[in-house]
Amino acid sequence: MKIRTYKKDLPYSYTLGVFLTIELLNNRPSNVLKVLLHNKANNSTGVSKIITLCKKHNIEYEYNDRLISVLSNKDNCFAVGIFTKYEETLGATINHLVLVNPSDSGNLGTIIRTALGFGITNLALVRPAVDIFDPKTIRASMGALFRISFKYYNTFSHYYQDYQDHQAYPFMLEAKTKLSQVDIIKPYALIFGNEGSGLPNNFSEIGTSLVIPHKNTIDSLNLSVAVAIALYEFTKS
Amino acid sequence: MKIRTYKKDLPYSYTLGVFLTIELLNNRPSNVLKVLLHNKANNSTGVSKIITLCKKHNIEYEYNDRLISVLSNKDNCFAVGIFTKYEETLGATINHLVLVNPSDSGNLGTIIRTALGFGITNLALVRPAVDIFDPKTIRASMGALFRISFKYYNTFSHYYQDYQDHQAYPFMLEAKTKLSQVDIIKPYALIFGNEGSGLPNNFSEIGTSLVIPHKNTIDSLNLSVAVAIALYEFTKS
Repeated sequence: MKIRTYKKDLPYSYTLGVFLTIELLNNRPSNVLKVLLHNKANNSTGVSKIITLCKKHNIEYEYNDRLISVLSNKDNCFAVGIFTKYEETLGATINHLVLVNPSDSGNLGTIIRTALGFGITNLALVRPAVDIFDPKTIRASMGALFRISFKYYNTFSHYYQDYQDHQAYPFMLEAKTKLSQVDIIKPYALIFGNEGSGLPNNFSEIGTSLVIPHKNTIDSLNLSVAVAIALYEFTKS
Repeated sequence: MKIRTYKKDLPYSYTLGVFLTIELLNNRPSNVLKVLLHNKANNSTGVSKIITLCKKHNIEYEYNDRLISVLSNKDNCFAVGIFTKYEETLGATINHLVLVNPSDSGNLGTIIRTALGFGITNLALVRPAVDIFDPKTIRASMGALFRISFKYYNTFSHYYQDYQDHQAYPFMLEAKTKLSQVDIIKPYALIFGNEGSGLPNNFSEIGTSLVIPHKNTIDSLNLSVAVAIALYEFTKS
């Protein structure tokens, strides 16, 4: 296997840093191809933990400062996990988060982390969509990516025909029902559009469209903020 | 006046870009020292709007491609507003957002924008705190900064002795009351700690501390996410 700097079409990706590599090893050990360690961090607690996990799961590791520096493009990256990409089927009876055409890797990472925090662990992504395995997304998710299940779909219809029994809640500025007055029917699919353009108008014909009202002094809420508020409202007790 | 690239201790700051410069001119015209325009955008609608606003408010503008490129460090910045920094007293009877030791300019910008969207327009910042006039914060706020009032305080006590009649709601993981079960007393102060460390423990003795419960699969919610959820819950109808 020849290791190169990350590109979207590679069949593998990287965790850049000790913390993310530990999250990878703890949650997706069977996907890990190899771990790279930096000599500078030889005796650190984090690297010891990584070595223990590699031995436990029979994963190869090597010290390779040069390759880490090429892959991470940073001076303070002391571990890199190399892992094969994967996808999983979403649960038929559990709640979903559906992102249609998300375009920002930082936003996606924050959203994954927030969703995990509120116990929503199934994510559908409708293309065109940002690459969930981009090391920037992994970093923004703080490793939460490895604790959720996700699947890409070419169109929303492809998703929806698989999960017709999910109550769809598309979030749109034009919706008639306020989020705070929603009747929650489970299992649900919370559906959000692109950062700039939102969902296409025809989503108002699907399920119960919802709006998070805000003053007209701003155009819209940031996507990761809107998703967080929805997740909070749907899961609070 | 000698114009240099932005530093925290300068008495003035910059809006980098046409949209932000229009927001500045619309909301803080009396603070604007000068506007720089780029020849490349000579006939654009945005630049025409800027010129109209400059004439209306008697503000000097000049075409200066070189200086714009020095200040913005970007190729596609077509306008720069130069304005003096300012601070305002917070309202005695309206609701406040209080950020104790915020350290990330992107987070602060997003928070300002979300707060404006939910109608919370008074912000207290307790030092050490990120520079609200950093062009990065202005950009992340998408100009919302110019539509709110804010004030820096050296300590939280300095803030609190001025606004003892505000009902304080410090947000802490250790709080006993859930956000979803809060009794809202107005005017209120929603208080949040630093991105990494949260609020010091002694804040639990102030007012009613609140928690946004989340699973222990994550350490904490992102600060801008937590603030957004709180603002939503306190202002929803």
